[in-house]
Amino acid sequence: MSDTADFRPEARVPRGFQDRRARDLRAERAILEAVAKVYEAWGFEPLETSALEYADALGKFLPDSDRPNEGVFAFQDDDEQWLALRYDLTAPLARFAAQNWETTPKPFRRYAYGPVWRNEKPGPGRFREFVQCDADTVGSDRPEADAEMIAMAVAGLEAAGLPRGTAMVKVNNRKLLDAVLASAGVEDPVQKLIVMRAVDKLDKFSLNDVRLLLGEGRLDESGDFTKGARLSPAAIERVMAYVTAPATSRTAFLDRLSDTFVDSTAGAEGLAELARIDAALNGLGVGDDRARFDPSVVRGLEYYTGPVFEAELLLETRDEKGERVRFGSVGGGGRYDDLVARFTGQRVPATGFSFGVSRLVAAMRSLAQMAEQADATARGPVVVIAFDDAAMADYFAVAAELRAAGIAAEVYLGRSGMKAQMKYADRRLSPAAVMLGEDERKAGTVTVKDLDLGRELAKGLSDNQQWRDARPGQQTVERRDLVATVRRIVEG
Amino acid sequence: MSDTADFRPEARVPRGFQDRRARDLRAERAILEAVAKVYEAWGFEPLETSALEYADALGKFLPDSDRPNEGVFAFQDDDEQWLALRYDLTAPLARFAAQNWETTPKPFRRYAYGPVWRNEKPGPGRFREFVQCDADTVGSDRPEADAEMIAMAVAGLEAAGLPRGTAMVKVNNRKLLDAVLASAGVEDPVQKLIVMRAVDKLDKFSLNDVRLLLGEGRLDESGDFTKGARLSPAAIERVMAYVTAPATSRTAFLDRLSDTFVDSTAGAEGLAELARIDAALNGLGVGDDRARFDPSVVRGLEYYTGPVFEAELLLETRDEKGERVRFGSVGGGGRYDDLVARFTGQRVPATGFSFGVSRLVAAMRSLAQMAEQADATARGPVVVIAFDDAAMADYFAVAAELRAAGIAAEVYLGRSGMKAQMKYADRRLSPAAVMLGEDERKAGTVTVKDLDLGRELAKGLSDNQQWRDARPGQQTVERRDLVATVRRIVEG
Repeated sequence: MSDTADFRPEARVPRGFQDRRARDLRAERAILEAVAKVYEAWGFEPLETSALEYADALGKFLPDSDRPNEGVFAFQDDDEQWLALRYDLTAPLARFAAQNWETTPKPFRRYAYGPVWRNEKPGPGRFREFVQCDADTVGSDRPEADAEMIAMAVAGLEAAGLPRGTAMVKVNNRKLLDAVLASAGVEDPVQKLIVMRAVDKLDKFSLNDVRLLLGEGRLDESGDFTKGARLSPAAIERVMAYVTAPATSRTAFLDRLSDTFVDSTAGAEGLAELARIDAALNGLGVGDDRARFDPSVVRGLEYYTGPVFEAELLLETRDEKGERVRFGSVGGGGRYDDLVARFTGQRVPATGFSFGVSRLVAAMRSLAQMAEQADATARGPVVVIAFDDAAMADYFAVAAELRAAGIAAEVYLGRSGMKAQMKYADRRLSPAAVMLGEDERKAGTVTVKDLDLGRELAKGLSDNQQWRDARPGQQTVERRDLVATVRRIVEG
Repeated sequence: MSDTADFRPEARVPRGFQDRRARDLRAERAILEAVAKVYEAWGFEPLETSALEYADALGKFLPDSDRPNEGVFAFQDDDEQWLALRYDLTAPLARFAAQNWETTPKPFRRYAYGPVWRNEKPGPGRFREFVQCDADTVGSDRPEADAEMIAMAVAGLEAAGLPRGTAMVKVNNRKLLDAVLASAGVEDPVQKLIVMRAVDKLDKFSLNDVRLLLGEGRLDESGDFTKGARLSPAAIERVMAYVTAPATSRTAFLDRLSDTFVDSTAGAEGLAELARIDAALNGLGVGDDRARFDPSVVRGLEYYTGPVFEAELLLETRDEKGERVRFGSVGGGGRYDDLVARFTGQRVPATGFSFGVSRLVAAMRSLAQMAEQADATARGPVVVIAFDDAAMADYFAVAAELRAAGIAAEVYLGRSGMKAQMKYADRRLSPAAVMLGEDERKAGTVTVKDLDLGRELAKGLSDNQQWRDARPGQQTVERRDLVATVRRIVEG
């Protein structure tokens, strides 16, 4: 290659990006397949928009509107228009809906999954590329459309493999907090957004820290100061009393607040919407054990206009220090009635829900670890050992025979000897190795080694010469018994 | 929304990009799932690299090395390093292999699928974002690794749904053309690359046009001049005689050429590799009807170093003018032993095969159309008509009941009347609509309308008042017979 001698770039994945291997991908694909199946059953059709959008189409709806021109990867096309990699799947949907509104059967239900990109400072576990899975209904102002999102999120989590009782969708309506704020004299949209963001921190910060964010602001450990919403002490207490009210049944929540919002149009509207959501959830068989009203849920994004949802895992896991931590949020969503209007000027009601797929994969892994389940996604194929160049076609025929029987198999294709080949099979977590040496070929037999058993025995006995001589888990069988022998080992 | 009044961007997908809808996505996913299953069975593990790479990692391996700094979407990161969207899945694999070589079990077999991006002039059917599906083996110099690629491509095409006999993998070895060129005194790498590109045009251009490209050059209809390889007339005829030799059986190909290359190291080596590929293919049960040696296959990419493959569909389809055209290439690959060395300086042999997934989707669609099969991927869910706000929970319960029985179903969530709802269900190609009006609820019944039958009848009879009054395909049944009634219609 002509440039090999001239320049040798360093082989490295870009900062904040990652290569994803078999174990994660198999888990992710299983989740997406299960969730997609649910969404299709609910009448949602798949849609994939392009990775790139015109930057003006993403507009101000950035993840962090404090930095309206940051947060995305953008560049100029050769016709000088600015292109940007999508940072979520909602802004492209709004663009698609606006572009195709006239020709689309309405309401339009679609789901989508795929990578999104954020041009942010990377950190541990914080990547600049990750996978989201969204469902949205565009063109319905019915609270039942919100209820459907909630019920579908519940069904999706269960289909993904989270047993009932391990997850909860928490539901609220921003109109209620709006009403509380209005009653405290707070009407400024910027101030209200700061309040939303402060309340959104309730699961991470102490109550006192949230009070600081509602008031003058908060100085964190690193010395950074976050400006507060500058509410009055009375307003702060009113907000805190509302958002920290204990979670109860949906009916109890509606009963408790029925008097509070009697004088507020927004409040009464918000409560009526939640009542209809409750009724629809009951029709769908989703009870308080799976979806609850929770006044502390507000979501941090600017664009929500009504009901908001958050899916929380109730699982506990251990952090690096061995301490128990709640797994927390794996997704969220809500109603956003103004996103399409950015393009068309015409208000189009919409509601949606988004899973963070990597969070779900991590949760599923914790769950499997807790249950001490074997990680099936890590298994390699059966490896056919390559002894002799002249017999490669025979090895290939063995591998083909195993595959035809539904068993993943490969021939070792490197140039190393027997020992290295066994090590290779072991590192790939292959269940078995198949040996067809000269002796076996002459005798019409084949030798099969159970590598799981080998690994198991090796744990306690690797220093034992006697054990190694005994070749545990290795058996020579008639060639015609190959598939049956391997199958017994694979199915273990 | 504060910026709605200020600025209203036009809702449009970027130039050269597209939104992909249910029909295409379902077909694509079915193909990828089937092909991935084959690749996993052959011991290939999934790997997903990031969409972005450092531009220097992509290096000169651009799709069109005539324009080494064009062809990719690139921009500067905030640390001033250049990032680029991957233009294929091979360059990122080479980067990954170089980065992880020490810790990877070798040979390393991986498959990958996902979008790639090309910053090229878009045209009809020519997009700047499309999906590839690749399998590669890195770290094996054995011709059997190439044979495995060929056999896997064959198995992948059949798993994707192309019946045996509709596709053919054509195989050649660049070393043979190298030997022909050497015997004609052509050794210059740039000149040789121009020859490869000219020969690669054999399936599109006339023999005479290819001769021009091997000689002084060719002026096309638009007036653009493509510089030729400037071979001598004798060399041109020698190349043409080699590349246009009729395709025969693999054995006949090897026999025919066994004398030709007896004095050429490259030629003898190339032929010996093809002989081992033939033997391995026989071991894998892949005969001449599925993989053939074909001297006209050279592939246009610079980086191939030995065996090259091309998967061709033998299907014929009709173009816009109704004329029969061969579907042509749906993928290709070959051996590239120098890609990893760009990073490490150390030669690492590798071979791979890449499908163009959109081409496969289009081929499958043609095939289905030829067989006049119904397009199952276009079906919508059963639609439950929404008559009455107060009964929404009942409609939801009906939809949930259908879904529990494995039938995709949704409640109409817009605000339109009965007629518009029926039109909506019809446009979504729903098989049936379910009506639970006041009458039905009182009587404990439900009305189910067979929309396929309606569509069928409407073709001939839509003007017939009597037909419309008779409400064809509409039946009112006991509520408990809902699922059975809908199932009969859906399973048609």
